[in-house]
Amino acid sequence: MDEFERIRRWTSGRQSPQWLSARGVRLGIGDDAAVVEPPQGADGEPVQWLLAVDTMVETVHFNWRTMSEADVGYKALAANISDIAAMGGQPAHALVSISAPAACTAERMTSLYDGLYACAARYGVAIVGGDTTSAPEHLVISVTVTGTVPAGRAVPRSGAKPGDAVFVTGPLGLSAAGLHYLLAAPARPGAAAIEADEAGSLVQAHRRPVPSPEGGRLLAERGTCHALNDVSDGAASEAWELAEASGVSIVLEEARLPLSGSMARYARRQGRDPLDWVLYGGEDYVLMGTIAADDAEQAGAALRARGIPFYRIGVVESGPSGVWLDRGGGRAPLAKGGYNHFASATGESDDDSNDEI
Amino acid sequence: MDEFERIRRWTSGRQSPQWLSARGVRLGIGDDAAVVEPPQGADGEPVQWLLAVDTMVETVHFNWRTMSEADVGYKALAANISDIAAMGGQPAHALVSISAPAACTAERMTSLYDGLYACAARYGVAIVGGDTTSAPEHLVISVTVTGTVPAGRAVPRSGAKPGDAVFVTGPLGLSAAGLHYLLAAPARPGAAAIEADEAGSLVQAHRRPVPSPEGGRLLAERGTCHALNDVSDGAASEAWELAEASGVSIVLEEARLPLSGSMARYARRQGRDPLDWVLYGGEDYVLMGTIAADDAEQAGAALRARGIPFYRIGVVESGPSGVWLDRGGGRAPLAKGGYNHFASATGESDDDSNDEI
Repeated sequence: MDEFERIRRWTSGRQSPQWLSARGVRLGIGDDAAVVEPPQGADGEPVQWLLAVDTMVETVHFNWRTMSEADVGYKALAANISDIAAMGGQPAHALVSISAPAACTAERMTSLYDGLYACAARYGVAIVGGDTTSAPEHLVISVTVTGTVPAGRAVPRSGAKPGDAVFVTGPLGLSAAGLHYLLAAPARPGAAAIEADEAGSLVQAHRRPVPSPEGGRLLAERGTCHALNDVSDGAASEAWELAEASGVSIVLEEARLPLSGSMARYARRQGRDPLDWVLYGGEDYVLMGTIAADDAEQAGAALRARGIPFYRIGVVESGPSGVWLDRGGGRAPLAKGGYNHFASATGESDDDSNDEI
Repeated sequence: MDEFERIRRWTSGRQSPQWLSARGVRLGIGDDAAVVEPPQGADGEPVQWLLAVDTMVETVHFNWRTMSEADVGYKALAANISDIAAMGGQPAHALVSISAPAACTAERMTSLYDGLYACAARYGVAIVGGDTTSAPEHLVISVTVTGTVPAGRAVPRSGAKPGDAVFVTGPLGLSAAGLHYLLAAPARPGAAAIEADEAGSLVQAHRRPVPSPEGGRLLAERGTCHALNDVSDGAASEAWELAEASGVSIVLEEARLPLSGSMARYARRQGRDPLDWVLYGGEDYVLMGTIAADDAEQAGAALRARGIPFYRIGVVESGPSGVWLDRGGGRAPLAKGGYNHFASATGESDDDSNDEI
């Protein structure tokens, strides 16, 4: 079986011609380039395209003790979908580049594609091409996604206005806690063992993050959401990005930061302050943004009506770019942090952070 | 200087806001995703988008003895532009993902971006985003490009018709010969030494390939070019792809295969048959396609008038999918080959080939 046949085996029949066609795919996997149009539903209305890429490197962003092959495939695509969500867009197409060492057998690659296609099916993303090469030692997976947004409606990082409310669309720090659990475990625990444990939801949050393109679209449609990010590098880091891109001060209120009960209990059992993971954990892939204060209540209700959490966690003020944490007794400057939690947990430096450009 | 600052240094100011805007960039590097529209010039006319990705891995596709950092950046983008050319499209935007080991200092990364931006400037490609991560040992660069094509005009691999003429848009085998020269040299030769040598053009072909999006567009506009590929994996392999995708027989005439004089002389000095590099060399990034025989003459004249070579090298026949080489005294089946010449030259296996999906 040559490389082309393996690729065909990994990809063919996974998404039907009808399903692909509804997503604007005119020519998919198998030619020099894919040919695409906006997915159905955007007809007539002018759209702009969103483009994002995200890469995961074995030993830097994951290892096989903490993630299965299918988890890696799933998460690589989910992280990209989260970037589209963070612009208020609808994810459409994906290209997948995998450089795999010889140790990644055809069977393991099949599992990786199982995860990719599971995520693609969940979010309606058409996989339209890619590249597969060998690698000397470590697996590298790089996923590019496209998305569409009604023309002029993309929500950047840079639009936060003094007076806006700051919000997040889910609890923070679960992924970092899940990773801590996985690294502390003596060996990669079986699925059953994890599910039986309270840490199951934390591990799940780490391995199978839940990006929120629906939340992003609902927020973009309102026209009152002025700035949006997804929490990939940690809440503190994302707040700093919003503050610096917008030239504003952001004040986060500690008492409003959403804690998951299981995360907080796990952190305390480990003798750690849950706030560390909440602010510096990263890879939560919830949305953080700012919205006109007088629409925050209604926006929150609209998101919650669709099952998407919405927490007001602070306010935007004019002033020098920066982020402050209000702990009740006054404000203190909040360090940017933004370290990659995997790297930190394994004692590596923060140069391993995964920085979009 | 943190990672974000380094990325800014590598990318900011390289392409002006006006230049980017003319290429449809509404929001470029620095947010969760880029926001793009079709470049100027396509206004009103409906376009489809082309999407392609191509990855180069240190030790698999290049090493630092044969390529400089700037060469790697240039070639990674050029290979992608060639994929857009092979659909008859106009390249528009690029996303660049680089996983770099610690040995790749900020200075070396700057050189890599110098090469990327040199290629982007030459072909009018807007760099709109990317991802930069660390890597344990080897550099991996993955470039995604978009392109546009008038709706319905993309030229696939699968349209070759019996009676078509088969053509290529440039001589073959130069890149493989250049790589052979580089690997045989005792150390990476300085630029002056190479230029003084006849091998200069071969080395240049290997390091700085010249994709032909203009040729692809001219061919697509005629409406008579039925199938198109770029020669990334070797002429034999590309002819096989056209034959298999189209369900036809392709007969290549040895006497018509374009040889470069310096390549042929270098091959003979090395005791090698130039035909090996012509058919199995790869990375030439010229176009190979099939065109209605009664338009071949005129199409060739139109390309040559723009400085783009055009050689008729064979014919398409009905019959079982396959490729034959006519050596004057009769036809013989042509082996698919398609090995990666870098891998072969270094004695590695075929599994290192770089296969698009």
